[in-house]
Amino acid sequence: MPLSSHDLTQLTASAAARLLQRRELTAQALLQACLACIERHEPDILAWRQYDAGRAMQLARQLDQGPLRGPLHGPPLGVKDLFDTRDFPSGYGSPIYQHHQPVNDAAAVALCRQAGAIVVGKTVTTEFATFTPGPTRNPHNHQHTPGGSSSGSAAAVGAHMVPLALGTQTAASIIRPAAYCGVVGFKPSFGLIPRAGVKSLSESLDTVGAFGRCVEDVALLASVMANAPQWRELPDDRKPRIGVCRTAHWDSASPAAQRAFETTVGRLHEAGVHLVDVTLTQAVCALSQAHDEVMCAEAFKALADERLNHPQLLSERLQAMLERGSRITYEHTLQHRAQLASARHQLGRGFADYDLLMTPSACGEAEQGLERTGDPMFSRIWSLMGLPSLNLPVGFGPQGLPLGIQVIGPVLSDTATLAFARWIEQKLAIDA
Amino acid sequence: MPLSSHDLTQLTASAAARLLQRRELTAQALLQACLACIERHEPDILAWRQYDAGRAMQLARQLDQGPLRGPLHGPPLGVKDLFDTRDFPSGYGSPIYQHHQPVNDAAAVALCRQAGAIVVGKTVTTEFATFTPGPTRNPHNHQHTPGGSSSGSAAAVGAHMVPLALGTQTAASIIRPAAYCGVVGFKPSFGLIPRAGVKSLSESLDTVGAFGRCVEDVALLASVMANAPQWRELPDDRKPRIGVCRTAHWDSASPAAQRAFETTVGRLHEAGVHLVDVTLTQAVCALSQAHDEVMCAEAFKALADERLNHPQLLSERLQAMLERGSRITYEHTLQHRAQLASARHQLGRGFADYDLLMTPSACGEAEQGLERTGDPMFSRIWSLMGLPSLNLPVGFGPQGLPLGIQVIGPVLSDTATLAFARWIEQKLAIDA
Repeated sequence: MPLSSHDLTQLTASAAARLLQRRELTAQALLQACLACIERHEPDILAWRQYDAGRAMQLARQLDQGPLRGPLHGPPLGVKDLFDTRDFPSGYGSPIYQHHQPVNDAAAVALCRQAGAIVVGKTVTTEFATFTPGPTRNPHNHQHTPGGSSSGSAAAVGAHMVPLALGTQTAASIIRPAAYCGVVGFKPSFGLIPRAGVKSLSESLDTVGAFGRCVEDVALLASVMANAPQWRELPDDRKPRIGVCRTAHWDSASPAAQRAFETTVGRLHEAGVHLVDVTLTQAVCALSQAHDEVMCAEAFKALADERLNHPQLLSERLQAMLERGSRITYEHTLQHRAQLASARHQLGRGFADYDLLMTPSACGEAEQGLERTGDPMFSRIWSLMGLPSLNLPVGFGPQGLPLGIQVIGPVLSDTATLAFARWIEQKLAIDA
Repeated sequence: MPLSSHDLTQLTASAAARLLQRRELTAQALLQACLACIERHEPDILAWRQYDAGRAMQLARQLDQGPLRGPLHGPPLGVKDLFDTRDFPSGYGSPIYQHHQPVNDAAAVALCRQAGAIVVGKTVTTEFATFTPGPTRNPHNHQHTPGGSSSGSAAAVGAHMVPLALGTQTAASIIRPAAYCGVVGFKPSFGLIPRAGVKSLSESLDTVGAFGRCVEDVALLASVMANAPQWRELPDDRKPRIGVCRTAHWDSASPAAQRAFETTVGRLHEAGVHLVDVTLTQAVCALSQAHDEVMCAEAFKALADERLNHPQLLSERLQAMLERGSRITYEHTLQHRAQLASARHQLGRGFADYDLLMTPSACGEAEQGLERTGDPMFSRIWSLMGLPSLNLPVGFGPQGLPLGIQVIGPVLSDTATLAFARWIEQKLAIDA
């Protein structure tokens, strides 16, 4: 019996890719189902800056008629509008670039296309991936923010419009919207996925990552961009030892977020996971503020052209951030690097006792209103340290919106971190 | 008595900037002298991909009529054609981008303009900053290469066409052409100058830097881009302890390069400098090959769009490099990072005994012919380690072409490295 359109949008990207590789599913049928979902929900969610159903169908037809292209042969893909694309304008969430048409694809986008991905369109980003939101709404409640800065990518995957989407994280721009929209988000270790053609905000922080509805899917998408084929063949038996880390921000977490976290801890304990309570040292905690300063200082430099030529088209929030960054000079940079080295040393010792750290992904359910995208506090440290991290959905809060936990591995342990995260995901699903 | 046109092209950027700040020299007079020099020598040297005398004069007039703009108020600047510019096409040394006009300035260019710099035009780069040369010739002998990849910037400064120019280094693309053209080149520590809007080749290596005719000048230019005002006020009394490092490539250095190096060592010894012979450990030496692999692997990713859409417009040399990079995956990356960490640890201990390492800058004088830009072997290690380094000219070889020494400081010690380099420069000039 052929799969219905609804069935097809429920397929994970990995399951769909397997059917496509065996030619048991056509790219056109899968895309058709996704497009129907987009047409139904987009007027309410506004996840897309632009999409092109006709062009996507043409690409799907070519895939169905041609040879297998690669690991992403077929699954439709959303691309955050911070990435350059040769066939869609790239607005970077700013009126300065409202009509900007790049001449080529960002490297990460080209790698996905080379592997067979169909780019359906561009998803909404906040202003230059900072805190001034776009129009996107949370797929679970349209009165609430989807989070940011990868707002549209998280919402599109959360609404089953596409199984996969590209995002970037500088502070918490993958983890937080993934948590708010109830999807899996993966930020790999710093330096593995090329950023060429991604609008730069903060060079020592900006990281390309992936959204999907399961760990296997984000591993699939990221593997193509990182040239890491082993992420597509994760070992199955990786029960992690977990460092349970409520962080210095625990009191900022809502009662619902705290409950969801403790419930998850309890379920992992019952599953026989070795758990240790972890209190972060002061040097590690201090990275939260260092992160903010690094981000502002680098944004001040990276957006020099826009500051100089279009100051009136920058939001007040962004102008204030850049003003703050202007006062952070080389000497502060030296302090930040020293802080980072010290924190790396201390946390490295911790990782001898556990495979993953686990923290809340965000302060709670997505905030009501579209004026703010939420606070990145739970991810700043890990972004500055360049550690691989994922959001895993762990149910819903009292407002009916998703909650997530964040798991974090040692630097460059992406393969193990993905495998451990998948073990947790499967354990929580079985127990649910 | 007013300075003649010849006098003005002999002025360092710093000296010119001081006169300009006091309004004792006009930007127009300085630019006029530079333009006359360009018109005289450009037909032989071909340093420029494009320049615009009329627009530059208009900017100079505006500077002379308006308030002081900043530390770079006035000195004409050449910009490597790897940087995006809003008023000049940006070709990245590739026929793919022959007619490409970016919509904005690279961040580093915008920071220079904000500080008052007059961008005269774009200087020739090799193909995407790799090894396939452009048309530029060595200003000291037109039958010889200027080196690469920052070929035009080094040649333009060497020929006194402009006092300052921007370059980038991924392997040896600042140090080698600076040595070949007899100018000072400065590659700062990794991560200090923004790369937004610079065509990406290798993300963990690409570094923006500066060309000038003295250390003070490269410090001035780099300080603006790094938001490091202290580089403009270097202490005067910094006599360095020097680690004399002939490297594993010593036998590849020409007799003339070896002689120039030993002569320099002798003069520093006479000047009372504390010198220690340094033999690099095997872990440090191994970074030469690791550098090459990192560069190829990252270039394979960064140039994915060009590989996919314009393979026939990539040079064979570059295609071979990308093919090599395609086979270097995540697992090799892990090895490279481990090698790098080990080398950092070992070299860090060495830097307790000396303030700078000193090595030859290149194998010798610039090679005859324009087909090759020379070998980057003497800089690969320091590029991969992200260490601040400079080329200092130390006279001429038997073919009448310049020779240079490379000085290298510990990571993020840019202020001290610049000050030590200036001390050496002054000592060698006094003794000459």
